[in-house]
Amino acid sequence: MANFGGHAIPGSFFLLLGFWLTVKYVLQHYWRTNQPKGRQITPPFFKKMEYFEGGFQIFAAFVGIMVEQFVVDGPHAHLFNKDGNPWVKLMNWQHSTMYLFFGIAGIALVASNVSKLVPAGVDRLTISLALFVEGFLFYFHVHNRPHLDAHIHSLLLAAVFCGSASAMLEVFIRDNIILEMLRGGLFILQGSWFYQIGFVLYPPSGKQWDLEEHSNVMFVTMCFCWHIAVALLLVTCTFSLVWFTVKRFSARGRDIEIGMRNTSSKSNSQKALLEESDEE
Amino acid sequence: MANFGGHAIPGSFFLLLGFWLTVKYVLQHYWRTNQPKGRQITPPFFKKMEYFEGGFQIFAAFVGIMVEQFVVDGPHAHLFNKDGNPWVKLMNWQHSTMYLFFGIAGIALVASNVSKLVPAGVDRLTISLALFVEGFLFYFHVHNRPHLDAHIHSLLLAAVFCGSASAMLEVFIRDNIILEMLRGGLFILQGSWFYQIGFVLYPPSGKQWDLEEHSNVMFVTMCFCWHIAVALLLVTCTFSLVWFTVKRFSARGRDIEIGMRNTSSKSNSQKALLEESDEE
Amino acid sequence: MANFGGHAIPGSFFLLLGFWLTVKYVLQHYWRTNQPKGRQITPPFFKKMEYFEGGFQIFAAFVGIMVEQFVVDGPHAHLFNKDGNPWVKLMNWQHSTMYLFFGIAGIALVASNVSKLVPAGVDRLTISLALFVEGFLFYFHVHNRPHLDAHIHSLLLAAVFCGSASAMLEVFIRDNIILEMLRGGLFILQGSWFYQIGFVLYPPSGKQWDLEEHSNVMFVTMCFCWHIAVALLLVTCTFSLVWFTVKRFSARGRDIEIGMRNTSSKSNSQKALLEESDEE
Amino acid sequence: MANFGGHAIPGSFFLLLGFWLTVKYVLQHYWRTNQPKGRQITPPFFKKMEYFEGGFQIFAAFVGIMVEQFVVDGPHAHLFNKDGNPWVKLMNWQHSTMYLFFGIAGIALVASNVSKLVPAGVDRLTISLALFVEGFLFYFHVHNRPHLDAHIHSLLLAAVFCGSASAMLEVFIRDNIILEMLRGGLFILQGSWFYQIGFVLYPPSGKQWDLEEHSNVMFVTMCFCWHIAVALLLVTCTFSLVWFTVKRFSARGRDIEIGMRNTSSKSNSQKALLEESDEE
Repeated sequence: MANFGGHAIPGSFFLLLGFWLTVKYVLQHYWRTNQPKGRQITPPFFKKMEYFEGGFQIFAAFVGIMVEQFVVDGPHAHLFNKDGNPWVKLMNWQHSTMYLFFGIAGIALVASNVSKLVPAGVDRLTISLALFVEGFLFYFHVHNRPHLDAHIHSLLLAAVFCGSASAMLEVFIRDNIILEMLRGGLFILQGSWFYQIGFVLYPPSGKQWDLEEHSNVMFVTMCFCWHIAVALLLVTCTFSLVWFTVKRFSARGRDIEIGMRNTSSKSNSQKALLEESDEE
Repeated sequence: MANFGGHAIPGSFFLLLGFWLTVKYVLQHYWRTNQPKGRQITPPFFKKMEYFEGGFQIFAAFVGIMVEQFVVDGPHAHLFNKDGNPWVKLMNWQHSTMYLFFGIAGIALVASNVSKLVPAGVDRLTISLALFVEGFLFYFHVHNRPHLDAHIHSLLLAAVFCGSASAMLEVFIRDNIILEMLRGGLFILQGSWFYQIGFVLYPPSGKQWDLEEHSNVMFVTMCFCWHIAVALLLVTCTFSLVWFTVKRFSARGRDIEIGMRNTSSKSNSQKALLEESDEE
Repeated sequence: MANFGGHAIPGSFFLLLGFWLTVKYVLQHYWRTNQPKGRQITPPFFKKMEYFEGGFQIFAAFVGIMVEQFVVDGPHAHLFNKDGNPWVKLMNWQHSTMYLFFGIAGIALVASNVSKLVPAGVDRLTISLALFVEGFLFYFHVHNRPHLDAHIHSLLLAAVFCGSASAMLEVFIRDNIILEMLRGGLFILQGSWFYQIGFVLYPPSGKQWDLEEHSNVMFVTMCFCWHIAVALLLVTCTFSLVWFTVKRFSARGRDIEIGMRNTSSKSNSQKALLEESDEE
Repeated sequence: MANFGGHAIPGSFFLLLGFWLTVKYVLQHYWRTNQPKGRQITPPFFKKMEYFEGGFQIFAAFVGIMVEQFVVDGPHAHLFNKDGNPWVKLMNWQHSTMYLFFGIAGIALVASNVSKLVPAGVDRLTISLALFVEGFLFYFHVHNRPHLDAHIHSLLLAAVFCGSASAMLEVFIRDNIILEMLRGGLFILQGSWFYQIGFVLYPPSGKQWDLEEHSNVMFVTMCFCWHIAVALLLVTCTFSLVWFTVKRFSARGRDIEIGMRNTSSKSNSQKALLEESDEE
């Protein structure tokens, strides 16, 4: 991971996840506010989104673990050997561990949609746990690095732990649009900050930053605040865009629900209806 | 900002904001407690107050950013140059960043009154964020200063972060008069403490304080508690004064609501009534 | 305060306050659980208890401030003089500040019983603030002391800050018997720990403790846990004792309410009834 | 305790407690979700489980204290002697103190089932306190040890304090299956981590770990995350196993309640029915 690409890949992943969550929760919020009070049946379209999200998380985590393990200079699933150095490629093992927990969060998301047995909130708990583990491992990762390097990673930790706390709150306060947007925004912030770390530590232009210069530390701190402002702006724009797009479509198709049902293919509509009637 | 005036200006701003918030929330509390249960329509007068508050915040933030950027020895919107020193006037850029977030809070306040689309609580979230960013930037600001200087600024941080936490709580616990008064009081405390910092670090009398003397640190800690007591007293007095003034006026005009409607000019009363019927 | 008596006086005060709070809240809890659902009128007896408590707090705080200021070697209300040492008897001023906030808490308690204007929870907020200020001043107090001295005071801070947090929670979660007992128990713990500090730092037997010995620090830590267990035991015993006493009396007098009314003298029963009808 | 067995015994105890809690809360959750809304009577079977749990805790705590005190090289209930070393076997005393608080939690659990006088939530408060005291004493325990030793114990503290916080939350948020599973899982994590500490510090294979090697610290951190994943897996499996077992049995015996009643012996069924009618 010690290059620009190694920070751009997780950055892109988190940006994508952040936008996905924002769009998903805006759609759900639109649905909730436009629903007559008596009916609380979520359309199968939302379930499909969550299956897709969970499935993608599981797939990405699996690929991530495989790549980290079986890349040319990877550990190839060996944890220790009999030679001098006791542990083989601990960095790759740590990244695999982080991916594992995002995979677990994906499994929990799928499971909580498949079965009503899974208590509501388990998906939030596991994503909170995945972020916690990510931050926890990063925290001991950062040790003994140059000043700017340690500082820029500890700012990442701020985003990670806030995301974890926000997801944990959602276990108890459900369907709160502000918390949902906050979580989406914190993923976007995390993603954009991964890119920033890449640009600072491995500048594609080639001009190295002075990692011990105090003014660089001060600039990076301020830059983090700008990323917060940009994440806020992006969430707001996404919210407005999705809201007004759905409003126009739902007005044209007369009913958002009908519009959404049509997107689900005819073939499994029978099954979807059955599932729907299982919902509480 | 390294002079008395540079601390008196934000101090006055926060004092003003603190008193404004206290008055606004006492009026709203009076309204809530004197309202018959069935009716929950807020009069247009409160909306006007919030428009004014938001507009003023946006205006002040804009002026603040312009002044910080285009003052004689400011950065003039240049972030870096090709010479030895990589960053131009980082201090001015940091202050601009702080103002930016207070401007965003102003925009959120106006937006949440203009449109019902904006989820309730976004205004509290953005003011909480603005305070958090202020504290966050100050925290790294303070580094490497003399003992008393660092201590007096870290006491400011206590007020700033408590204010941020209190505003964040208001996202979830709305219309709680104690939290609202607490937020007002913490702004007053912050404002009066800015003045205190000015008096200690840049005494107008000219007699310098010994910045490394331990007893000065102890005195300043105790002085902070006195500021808390004064802020408590000021909030209590403002509460009582506003309450009894409104009570007398409302008794004379027979109905507070009618009294307030009269303050809104006739010309836009038609529009106000339409807005009012949009309220939930 | 640098002697055994100087720790025994606040210790006795906090022990007394802790037992008083425990008894008061057990009585209120008994009342709540034995009340038919429709009636929520608190009897004037409880109001009297709170007047007495608030009045005593104000009186004790006033006496405390006077003693600290006008004791023979006190500051006599002088904060600074023109000589070498800038601040006069800062320790006495700090203790006066602590008393001031307990006085404010007393005023808030009386005020919230006198007038319905005072929002519910202000009394808890001010007691929380008083504990916070006590802990805040102690925190900077402890600096630069021998190891055991610093440690034994920081254990006191644990009790103080937990009490502050518990009282702050009560602002939002009212009439929760567990939180009320917790607050009472934490005051008892604080009181008994003050005595322990006195016994360790100024042993009446005269045999000095070694303030740098590590095993002494370890013993004191464990001893704090024993004080927690004793505080738990005392709260439990007080709870049971008060509960069964009240139960027996209320059974004999057939109705606890009638029993309590009789304790309020006939002369002000007319006024009490008027107050009662003002209750919500 | 400075050997493998000294870590395996508490480890086994916490693993057992964790599984017990998971099973108990799954059964209660099954009961709650399969109960018609009007009836909220818990069957006597659950009370029996809690009596057993509380009784076992009291018994284990008593045995633990006795063993720590009267083992061959123990303090034999002497706290200090007149010789040079002031305190006798502080380590044994500290362990006794920890056991004492788990004993208190057991007493509270039994008491809250015996009498309705005990406020709901006292059992959670005392278990939270027991975990807090355990963490609190461990925290000062760890001081002045080699790097890996201190680190591996501070990871234990993470599990202990999370468990304490989770139990404290349960005082206010009752019957939340996620919190209950979390508590069970954290006990399992604590138990398995005790075993891990034993394997690292006192390896049964005899090959010592290098306690200052940085890569060992990094591996142990990652290993803690694996233990979290395993605890999650174990809780999930236990949940599913218990749920489907109960479902099958309840389907066969037509009614889970009847099935459970039969497990309670005939002899005390009369008493149980009386107790049941006392329930609220």
